[in-house]
Amino acid sequence: MLIALFPGDGIGPEIVDQAKRVLDALAIDGLTYEQGLVGGAAYKAVGHPLPPETLELARRADAILFGAVGDPDCDALERHLRPEQAILGLRKELGLFSNLRPAKVFPELAGESALKPEVAGAIDLLIVRETNGDVYFGEKGFRTTADGLREGYDIMSYNEAEVRRIAHSGFQAAQARRGKLCSVDKANVLETSQLWRDVVIEVSADYPDVALSHMYVDNAAMQLVRNPGQFDVIVTGNLFGDILSDQASMCVGSIGMLASATLNGSGQGLYEPIHGSAPDIAGTGKANPLATILSAAMMLRYSLDLGAQADRIEAAVAKALANGARSADLGGAMTTVEMGDAVLAVL
Amino acid sequence: MLIALFPGDGIGPEIVDQAKRVLDALAIDGLTYEQGLVGGAAYKAVGHPLPPETLELARRADAILFGAVGDPDCDALERHLRPEQAILGLRKELGLFSNLRPAKVFPELAGESALKPEVAGAIDLLIVRETNGDVYFGEKGFRTTADGLREGYDIMSYNEAEVRRIAHSGFQAAQARRGKLCSVDKANVLETSQLWRDVVIEVSADYPDVALSHMYVDNAAMQLVRNPGQFDVIVTGNLFGDILSDQASMCVGSIGMLASATLNGSGQGLYEPIHGSAPDIAGTGKANPLATILSAAMMLRYSLDLGAQADRIEAAVAKALANGARSADLGGAMTTVEMGDAVLAVL
Ligand SMILES: CC(C)[C@H](C(=O)O)[C@@H](O)C(=O)O
Ligand SMILES: CC(C)[C@H](C(=O)O)[C@@H](O)C(=O)O
Repeated sequence: MLIALFPGDGIGPEIVDQAKRVLDALAIDGLTYEQGLVGGAAYKAVGHPLPPETLELARRADAILFGAVGDPDCDALERHLRPEQAILGLRKELGLFSNLRPAKVFPELAGESALKPEVAGAIDLLIVRETNGDVYFGEKGFRTTADGLREGYDIMSYNEAEVRRIAHSGFQAAQARRGKLCSVDKANVLETSQLWRDVVIEVSADYPDVALSHMYVDNAAMQLVRNPGQFDVIVTGNLFGDILSDQASMCVGSIGMLASATLNGSGQGLYEPIHGSAPDIAGTGKANPLATILSAAMMLRYSLDLGAQADRIEAAVAKALANGARSADLGGAMTTVEMGDAVLAVL
Repeated sequence: MLIALFPGDGIGPEIVDQAKRVLDALAIDGLTYEQGLVGGAAYKAVGHPLPPETLELARRADAILFGAVGDPDCDALERHLRPEQAILGLRKELGLFSNLRPAKVFPELAGESALKPEVAGAIDLLIVRETNGDVYFGEKGFRTTADGLREGYDIMSYNEAEVRRIAHSGFQAAQARRGKLCSVDKANVLETSQLWRDVVIEVSADYPDVALSHMYVDNAAMQLVRNPGQFDVIVTGNLFGDILSDQASMCVGSIGMLASATLNGSGQGLYEPIHGSAPDIAGTGKANPLATILSAAMMLRYSLDLGAQADRIEAAVAKALANGARSADLGGAMTTVEMGDAVLAVL
């Protein structure tokens, strides 16, 4: 089985290194690795954030372990050359439509959240975000109005097939958890949301064991602050999912701990920490590698069918934390490598 | 000066009544009032959520004091007949484009927030939300794809004139406060946002005394949880403003305390509490009228140039709270009328 390693920008290479050490320590038979260039690093090396060789490697791979993209040096580039295009391009080209972002507080870290410990401590939710459609991928551009004004536009849309497949992801995730699915939209204003809601209701007929509810996105943003413990699985579109999943991760407090998976229909997946490339601390050894290590665990579980090995990694991370392993973001002083060591020591 | 009273649905009539009592107690010369039907109440009475007579009254009025709209009985109606169309229609027809939502914690209520008291206590921000454009008002509908699939779509757009006028609102609000403006967009993905960002930067040349920053909406949703005290004024589009302003209000904790104003270019304004119609407690006397009373204060300040009277109301609300006035949402047992009494007693 082939794993593509895409370290990317900023702290990406440092954190992917630690995840690779952990994978190596498991000595899993038949795993091979190839590394590829993405993001600002790829642009600087070969002039494009998602070079053809990288895309070709991604297509061949069973799974992609991704660090982070984002480089302030690239801010002034044209949109199609910016680092973010690497992640958007991979999602689209590989049909990676189902982005799973679990948010759960490690008991030792409940105090890290800006929320009261009893509120943060109750968080155990999964956001299932659609990542192949919505206003992200519709026609977009600049035009001139009849009055000669500059105008920017982006078409938001979802068709029933797109909604149906992500709805199935959401319902199945809810079945595997506590059986509650909350679909988030803005159906009181958007027709895209109305279609979304109609189709989610249609799909719900296949899942009589899942309790479906609907919430407007503005209310969801409130409820994630007021009482995030009320949620089990949230399913939502690309744009609302972008906002709510980042909000939820911050409710947990320790964003350096949160992993994600983005899957297509054939089991392929891209695995990445939800935090960014943190250019300000790149190269200082301060980055927390645990979110990437936990992303590697998700990779073993979802794309390589190695659930037991995934459990081992997750247990080792929990143990390392319980033993007091703390990088700077968690109020400690351990380096990226020392955090990796702490996990390896208890694996 | 004519004030249109639009109580609307659910708890709307009860809370507007208390605000009217407070306005009456100020005995301001030359204020007249006319009441109009909006929302589900209007639909039930005359078949439309924003009847022509209501719109005509709104146009004549110097200011509108609005309760709330939203009625579960109307959920199955066609979109153009739903209660929400009243507020969307008033914003659009009267050109009410600048929605001001201050979020600040009353010291007595810092404990109400799900955020730690020291995080919530630092909140003192104003969200300036554009309410005449964006994906709310673009072409929208259902269509069939080439493959015969149902599809919902909504066009998101902003032109430079729309961005310029709300940018001026944002910069001017920042000048009157702590001189910091954060413009929130998703320019790494949306062309609408790129135009937004470009124009905000152009307008900033007129305000050298304001420190302008830019933030992506996903990051803003995180920062509003992590450290909301960092913000002074946030300016953003209609959709992002809907989400972030509700999130910010919940960070404050006591959503029954938060007022809003929506202004057009000629000083006319619509004033409403940011909470909804709360149909579950309508008629029980449990609703907190303070957000509506504070909205009446904003009305005196922004549309009627009666800043001193606005100050009086705000001081009376603060005093009532300090005296221990608490409705159910604030953990107390006082009724809607008793809360009004508590304010009147110290006015
Ligand atoms: C980098 C950016 C384009 C991306 C997104 O908006 O999807 C990121 O915020 C994410 O959530 O993965
Ligand atoms: C009722 C709804 C259409 C409205 C909006 O989305 O603007 C509301 O949420 C608000 O924020 O005033």
